[in-house]
Amino acid sequence: MALITSETKGVFVIACTPFTDNGALDTASVDSMVDFYYEKGADGLTILGMMGEAPKLTQAESIEVTKLTLTRSGDKPVVVGVSAPGLAAIGELTKAVMDLGAAGVMVAPPSSLRTDDQIIAYYRNVVETVGKDVPVVLQDFPLVTGVQISTKVLGTIFEEHPSIVMLKHEDWPGLQKISDLRDAEAKGRRRTSILCGNAGAFITEEMQRGADGAMTGFAYPEMMVDVVRLSGEGKFDEAQDIFDAYLPLVRYEQQPGLGLAVRKYVLAKRGAIASAAQRRPGAALNALAIKEVEKLIARQTAKLEALN
Amino acid sequence: MALITSETKGVFVIACTPFTDNGALDTASVDSMVDFYYEKGADGLTILGMMGEAPKLTQAESIEVTKLTLTRSGDKPVVVGVSAPGLAAIGELTKAVMDLGAAGVMVAPPSSLRTDDQIIAYYRNVVETVGKDVPVVLQDFPLVTGVQISTKVLGTIFEEHPSIVMLKHEDWPGLQKISDLRDAEAKGRRRTSILCGNAGAFITEEMQRGADGAMTGFAYPEMMVDVVRLSGEGKFDEAQDIFDAYLPLVRYEQQPGLGLAVRKYVLAKRGAIASAAQRRPGAALNALAIKEVEKLIARQTAKLEALN
Amino acid sequence: MALITSETKGVFVIACTPFTDNGALDTASVDSMVDFYYEKGADGLTILGMMGEAPKLTQAESIEVTKLTLTRSGDKPVVVGVSAPGLAAIGELTKAVMDLGAAGVMVAPPSSLRTDDQIIAYYRNVVETVGKDVPVVLQDFPLVTGVQISTKVLGTIFEEHPSIVMLKHEDWPGLQKISDLRDAEAKGRRRTSILCGNAGAFITEEMQRGADGAMTGFAYPEMMVDVVRLSGEGKFDEAQDIFDAYLPLVRYEQQPGLGLAVRKYVLAKRGAIASAAQRRPGAALNALAIKEVEKLIARQTAKLEALN
Amino acid sequence: MALITSETKGVFVIACTPFTDNGALDTASVDSMVDFYYEKGADGLTILGMMGEAPKLTQAESIEVTKLTLTRSGDKPVVVGVSAPGLAAIGELTKAVMDLGAAGVMVAPPSSLRTDDQIIAYYRNVVETVGKDVPVVLQDFPLVTGVQISTKVLGTIFEEHPSIVMLKHEDWPGLQKISDLRDAEAKGRRRTSILCGNAGAFITEEMQRGADGAMTGFAYPEMMVDVVRLSGEGKFDEAQDIFDAYLPLVRYEQQPGLGLAVRKYVLAKRGAIASAAQRRPGAALNALAIKEVEKLIARQTAKLEALN
Repeated sequence: MALITSETKGVFVIACTPFTDNGALDTASVDSMVDFYYEKGADGLTILGMMGEAPKLTQAESIEVTKLTLTRSGDKPVVVGVSAPGLAAIGELTKAVMDLGAAGVMVAPPSSLRTDDQIIAYYRNVVETVGKDVPVVLQDFPLVTGVQISTKVLGTIFEEHPSIVMLKHEDWPGLQKISDLRDAEAKGRRRTSILCGNAGAFITEEMQRGADGAMTGFAYPEMMVDVVRLSGEGKFDEAQDIFDAYLPLVRYEQQPGLGLAVRKYVLAKRGAIASAAQRRPGAALNALAIKEVEKLIARQTAKLEALN
Repeated sequence: MALITSETKGVFVIACTPFTDNGALDTASVDSMVDFYYEKGADGLTILGMMGEAPKLTQAESIEVTKLTLTRSGDKPVVVGVSAPGLAAIGELTKAVMDLGAAGVMVAPPSSLRTDDQIIAYYRNVVETVGKDVPVVLQDFPLVTGVQISTKVLGTIFEEHPSIVMLKHEDWPGLQKISDLRDAEAKGRRRTSILCGNAGAFITEEMQRGADGAMTGFAYPEMMVDVVRLSGEGKFDEAQDIFDAYLPLVRYEQQPGLGLAVRKYVLAKRGAIASAAQRRPGAALNALAIKEVEKLIARQTAKLEALN
Repeated sequence: MALITSETKGVFVIACTPFTDNGALDTASVDSMVDFYYEKGADGLTILGMMGEAPKLTQAESIEVTKLTLTRSGDKPVVVGVSAPGLAAIGELTKAVMDLGAAGVMVAPPSSLRTDDQIIAYYRNVVETVGKDVPVVLQDFPLVTGVQISTKVLGTIFEEHPSIVMLKHEDWPGLQKISDLRDAEAKGRRRTSILCGNAGAFITEEMQRGADGAMTGFAYPEMMVDVVRLSGEGKFDEAQDIFDAYLPLVRYEQQPGLGLAVRKYVLAKRGAIASAAQRRPGAALNALAIKEVEKLIARQTAKLEALN
Repeated sequence: MALITSETKGVFVIACTPFTDNGALDTASVDSMVDFYYEKGADGLTILGMMGEAPKLTQAESIEVTKLTLTRSGDKPVVVGVSAPGLAAIGELTKAVMDLGAAGVMVAPPSSLRTDDQIIAYYRNVVETVGKDVPVVLQDFPLVTGVQISTKVLGTIFEEHPSIVMLKHEDWPGLQKISDLRDAEAKGRRRTSILCGNAGAFITEEMQRGADGAMTGFAYPEMMVDVVRLSGEGKFDEAQDIFDAYLPLVRYEQQPGLGLAVRKYVLAKRGAIASAAQRRPGAALNALAIKEVEKLIARQTAKLEALN
């Protein structure tokens, strides 16, 4: 299977991990979900990320989910999240998933990191641990990790490690970071792929700032697919029209601590997975929240129809 | 001047503090800004909040801003943020602003608080410090303070202190918190006013959950005013239509670390204040960001016109 | 092998994990280290704790260390640290080590927990995950976890879960917590074993407050053994004399981020392990620090001789 | 009054703020406490620090405490803590206390700082705010502030701002930081005074690493005075003997959240202040803790007598 590179573009959907109502891994839904994502236009997937309930899986289950997803994805690239408190676990899971055919691994910084030098040293250790031939996605998500990585530090890391080929960008605010990274490349630094997260809430501006696409899990991947495609064609106003139609739900899904419940509810409703259940501990939408989501979906559908 | 009570409803705009380009307090702009907010339909104001650059003011300046705002506000209620690392400063500023005619004070928990008992003890100390006759707004904003206050703890605090008459609600996610607080009141707990923050990003759902209004600083206060009014009339779909038109800018303004720059830029553009300058240290919008904001405003204007 | 219970007393040494200079697991040193600890009077061991470099081990290595330690420990009880970001990993490792004969497992709260209810719910999930028949040690170490558990919350957890039989106490300050827990037991709450950590720096006061012993890794376990024994005999002054002789080194070893390097240096010097090496990333003592440690050891030896 | 400089050496005691039992400022005890500190050999004082309950004082009280302390100190240098959430308050208090004759001001970084550049920018703003003629002490206390300042960042700050003449060193571990800073000076960087905190718990090693003295509030300042003097004379073993005698109490006093109560208890017992009361909110020692402290003092007295 092809590896991700510093030229990778498009939409990598952050996949959820489907469970049955009693909390068992729902392998049939892995297949249907993978199919769903590609039918909606995804260029690739990212599994075992923060929204994938990865810490709730045993190591054996993590491998099984990877196998199932890779098999069903055919030659589409699949990135695997391998963040862990220790390098040994990162190295162990990386070896396993790369052997299975993953396109690369994604690593977020542990929340204990503080100084610039600590962050730089951490990614040096990561690259030494996984090996220089494994493509790495650096996940920059300070809202969750608590680790703030300045543009300068990102530059130092990118220059030192050619195998870190992609930035999963979800700093907040972070639009200027994209511009600054692209400016540095214009002045000679090697290129890095930038795919953006943050539930897609800034994807229109991000694309105009020079991002290569999206890596996020909004339950209507066609939004990201359309915005990325239209932005690539320079049709920024049309992209914004489509984005605006989805934005009320994007916003609702972006709530920390509730987002995954919304996402799984919508995916189940759309037939991508059989059950919206999260493995314990996990929130479920109550009746009031479901009513709010349904209203947002109904309005979204009407707006999209009005656009066509 | 009237004090806020547990029955207070409507839109309290979180006011910014206007400075000249060289960082001096712009007293003329305080007047024009206050006029602007009330012209747009504000029911009251909240000053010296987190978005008011309060920590950048000397004590004398804080008093001056309060005086100017109160004078210009006439009989409209003005809440003053008095959060500080120590109780003495809270007590000192509270006495000063209540003597000047403030309608109440707002206190966020210091970020050192952790356990439920610490939070409960803190507000006990606050009430003892400011006096039981001073109406207090409890600001519940974990994204910034790092302090998570459960619904149960809020209930304990409300029951113990009748002078805490209002919750500035900006937990995230927090919709269910509103429902739970209202449920407890339906079962007999005394009523508390709930005004919502979070840049207004959830104001439609919040109103349907039982909020009394908004307390936030989005630079188009007429959005909150219209949504609150229409919600009060049960016209939730119309409220949502208006909200949706503003949402792309609400979203852009909600970026931590950049939001105030956006807000001041828009307020200056709308003539409410003379300069968008923040006192040092503070970010200013660069050309790229201004272009993004202007595009959002142009689209917003078109959408609002289409609604009428 | 016997399980730990709420009556367990004595000294459980927090064991390090021995590596060779090139970072491989040093299985021979596991044996010699285990022998060393028991020769010095340890009643049991705790492995794979924070000081055991557990996150640097692969799952297979964690199992191997457990097997080796259990085999060498004979019928002495060995507690295994199983803290992990997710319940699945906790359950998986717990099942493995209990099947091998561990005496119980130790679980620290994840640093994301904030409210009292979140902490209570977490340990409910832990007990459901590992099963009610597995003895659990609750590790209360806010300096490292950032989670503050009040005495009241500890009481709620203890009352709800009889299988949580032991508190590894290293709150700071925490002496009063011991007294308060014992007071609650005097008034009827079921007994919980309390073994104290914090590098042994408060072991004299802790024993007088009602602790059952120590669970910490100071490289001279005979200090804890002697203090616990003498305290049990009511010879508090003699206990304090011995403690005072070791205190300068205890203090030096207590430095966060450096403590393990000191500990492994001393253990290697004493012949317990072959190499002081830590697996990457890990600090090593430089020449200046070694000189300081050697001076402290020399003075300690002289003081102990003067006591005899 | 003389200003502190990059050559300043000796012991600056962190002074507490004396209150009467009902929480009023105890001005008579300010005088007796100041006298006490100098009688015990202090070279200077630091007031309104973290242990000085500064956040509990009104601005007027802060000025009064400064005036009283400066008057009573005669020509001894007094550093004033001016840390605050905002630059305006820092500038306001700095101007006031420097006009009154303070020897310099001390500023800790606000806990919101994360990246190296943010820390560097912060001290640039501080120096611009207070003026380049005001000597500044940079307080490096990550255990409390949460801000980790690398040795490299300290170097950048020192090189940029000659008016930052002193480091209050209480990183943990931090011995190597002292060595590294001195090494950089040996290679040409301008000298900075280094006074050490951390309750004096590492003062012996710190002096041998090149520190200029202590800035901490242990209630037996003669310990720091003796250790600093003897270290200056190269009598490191004698210094260590004295240190060891005090260490059990140093350790007890170092407990976060309890230390100030211990310190005030001892100061009151020694006649330096009239009451051990802290202003609300503040812990007081209960009977059990008092018994522990008294025992430690009795043993300390006996050990010191044995040394003479």
